[in-house]
Amino acid sequence: MIEQVLVLSLSKQTIERYNTTMSFSEELNIKQGVFTFAGDSKLPLQSGREFGPISVAYETYGVLSKDKCNAILLLHALSGDAHVAGKHNKEDKKTGWWDVMVGPGKPFDTNKYFVICSNVLGGCSGTTGPSSLDPLTKKPYAMTFPVITIEDMVNAQHALVKSLGIDCLYSISGGSMGGMQALKWVQMYPEMIKSVVAIATTTKLSPQAIAFNEVGRQAIISDPAWNKGDYYGKKELPRKGLSIARMLGHITYLSEEGMTRKFGRQLSSSQQFQYEFLTEFQVESYLHYQGQRFTERFDANSYIYLTKAIDYFDLSSGYNSLEEALAMVKSKFLVLSYSSDWLFPTYQSDELVKALRKNNIDVSFCEINADYGHDSFLLQNDLHEKLIHGFLENVK
Amino acid sequence: MIEQVLVLSLSKQTIERYNTTMSFSEELNIKQGVFTFAGDSKLPLQSGREFGPISVAYETYGVLSKDKCNAILLLHALSGDAHVAGKHNKEDKKTGWWDVMVGPGKPFDTNKYFVICSNVLGGCSGTTGPSSLDPLTKKPYAMTFPVITIEDMVNAQHALVKSLGIDCLYSISGGSMGGMQALKWVQMYPEMIKSVVAIATTTKLSPQAIAFNEVGRQAIISDPAWNKGDYYGKKELPRKGLSIARMLGHITYLSEEGMTRKFGRQLSSSQQFQYEFLTEFQVESYLHYQGQRFTERFDANSYIYLTKAIDYFDLSSGYNSLEEALAMVKSKFLVLSYSSDWLFPTYQSDELVKALRKNNIDVSFCEINADYGHDSFLLQNDLHEKLIHGFLENVK
Repeated sequence: MIEQVLVLSLSKQTIERYNTTMSFSEELNIKQGVFTFAGDSKLPLQSGREFGPISVAYETYGVLSKDKCNAILLLHALSGDAHVAGKHNKEDKKTGWWDVMVGPGKPFDTNKYFVICSNVLGGCSGTTGPSSLDPLTKKPYAMTFPVITIEDMVNAQHALVKSLGIDCLYSISGGSMGGMQALKWVQMYPEMIKSVVAIATTTKLSPQAIAFNEVGRQAIISDPAWNKGDYYGKKELPRKGLSIARMLGHITYLSEEGMTRKFGRQLSSSQQFQYEFLTEFQVESYLHYQGQRFTERFDANSYIYLTKAIDYFDLSSGYNSLEEALAMVKSKFLVLSYSSDWLFPTYQSDELVKALRKNNIDVSFCEINADYGHDSFLLQNDLHEKLIHGFLENVK
Repeated sequence: MIEQVLVLSLSKQTIERYNTTMSFSEELNIKQGVFTFAGDSKLPLQSGREFGPISVAYETYGVLSKDKCNAILLLHALSGDAHVAGKHNKEDKKTGWWDVMVGPGKPFDTNKYFVICSNVLGGCSGTTGPSSLDPLTKKPYAMTFPVITIEDMVNAQHALVKSLGIDCLYSISGGSMGGMQALKWVQMYPEMIKSVVAIATTTKLSPQAIAFNEVGRQAIISDPAWNKGDYYGKKELPRKGLSIARMLGHITYLSEEGMTRKFGRQLSSSQQFQYEFLTEFQVESYLHYQGQRFTERFDANSYIYLTKAIDYFDLSSGYNSLEEALAMVKSKFLVLSYSSDWLFPTYQSDELVKALRKNNIDVSFCEINADYGHDSFLLQNDLHEKLIHGFLENVK
């Protein structure tokens, strides 16, 4: 398969490396690669700018069938990356971000499907983003990186998929920002896609969600260590601002009932209030931990660029209605929402479903009862696993 | 009446000034005062510390009846102050924070009732707080100010009310943190209170609300200008951090539907995306404006202290149940919640109502349909005005 990939990659594109060392999670047949394109002929961005070269870090799981018709493209959310399932090494503490969903016998069954996941354009886990070196200046792009959109992310993924010799995707799926990419994919490349699994997502970001993103961005750019985005290689990084943005994000990913069940008003260590400005409540400790940990793996500028891309997302932009914006769609759909998701509430999925049905698209829709808020889509849940499994079985 | 106040103030207490200049809103008979107590005999705080002297800035509206039985104590929310209604001067741009509710012919009718409102302990609008001068050091307390609680606020108000010669309150009322104070009042001084109007409030802060408060505090203390709280008189103030905290607060005071109706995805100036990191969406401009304006009138350290007091609030703390925590209550209750308030949702008011009814308290409860979120209680609304008016008419 590796030879095929190299042969089929377009002339201006290169596969920089393709890690064929045996992975720890052998049954997943994890392969890592970086695909580079738009070196000479830049990628036109939605902003009107052109940009390149672009490297796309990706992983594949399972085996591409001879007819190349079993590929499923998974699309990650804001803080995700290409590593969707399994472990690369025995020492890895954590599996990929959607390990509950991807693997042999799991809904995205790697015994049947060839699963592809790539880090998004603008990200910081291998794909070109603000922390990447600008070949012209030999310095990180930082804030000279162009403002990108969900459409631009999809175009980069499209170039990757084509480079793998794949003309037809059995399914595309993602939650949250991943779902936005899935919807943009099916709007831009409807002929390529047999089915879509859109999870905990929306066709346009609400003003409340824009507001939360803006507060997060303000926390980052107000951190003196952010230094107008020019902090790479410096001693001080904008960890504090990024941590605050992540703490806030986490509140929106959970739900009030989930937090009450998980933390309540429990204190971290003492049995009684200390009447000091300490991190006393368990919910505070949890958020501090999540915020701090995030700064160890995520780039503050990527956070700014990706949240802006999310804010801009409006599938019906340029159309008279959402129905019209989906008129080209032929794919079968599964739409899932979660009862306690208040960031992308069920009514937003419902709007998508209604617009698809007006276009006579075959749509299955389920609101899953779960108290874990927006993050429910990432967690073990028999119902959504069965629904996705069953849906994929019946794609023709 | 002024003379009475002076005569009745306790020996260790002083009325520093009492502004009898004619107010602009003459019909309200606004009077401003500062009551100082706990100079020699300090106030015991819930933390176990003692603190004093304490000055309480307050305003009164209307006239205290001869039998002193027509006083209503209004309790402000996090960012409020003693100035609840009308204007002090013709030049004032804004009226008090609850002008829709307080005045002749309004629900808290100043033709009938003697309305009192004081700035809370820990605040920054005249009452002793972290920005006040410590008489020992002649410097602002800053973070040497003791951690205070809703109970401590109530004790300061109690001293004020007693100093005014009032032994019985016709009603106490407040929304949000003001409602918490009302609940604490009736728990601590049940014999003094004929009726309670508890609006958009809760008997204990949820972990989600604690989490939002903690993110706001982190934004402030991460601002280098905060300087461990020691910024008074300095050139740089922690405006950026306080502004971010306020922006976040504002999101929680509104609702998703309210924001969608008010702002939608409308842009501020341009008709199309600029693909730059500008304040593009109207909702962003609104939050920036609110954040910036807040820093002109509020002290960052007060924000830290008051949110901590809110986090600590749990009416049933020290009791076996909420029912038991309200067993001493004799007052008649009106409880109001708002359908779109997701910060202090209706179920929390419902818990209060159920606990009161178990104690055979006369409770009227209404969830008011309003899409303005938590802030609905501050806005014009025929229904809540009529309900409060009618409720107060029938207090005996």
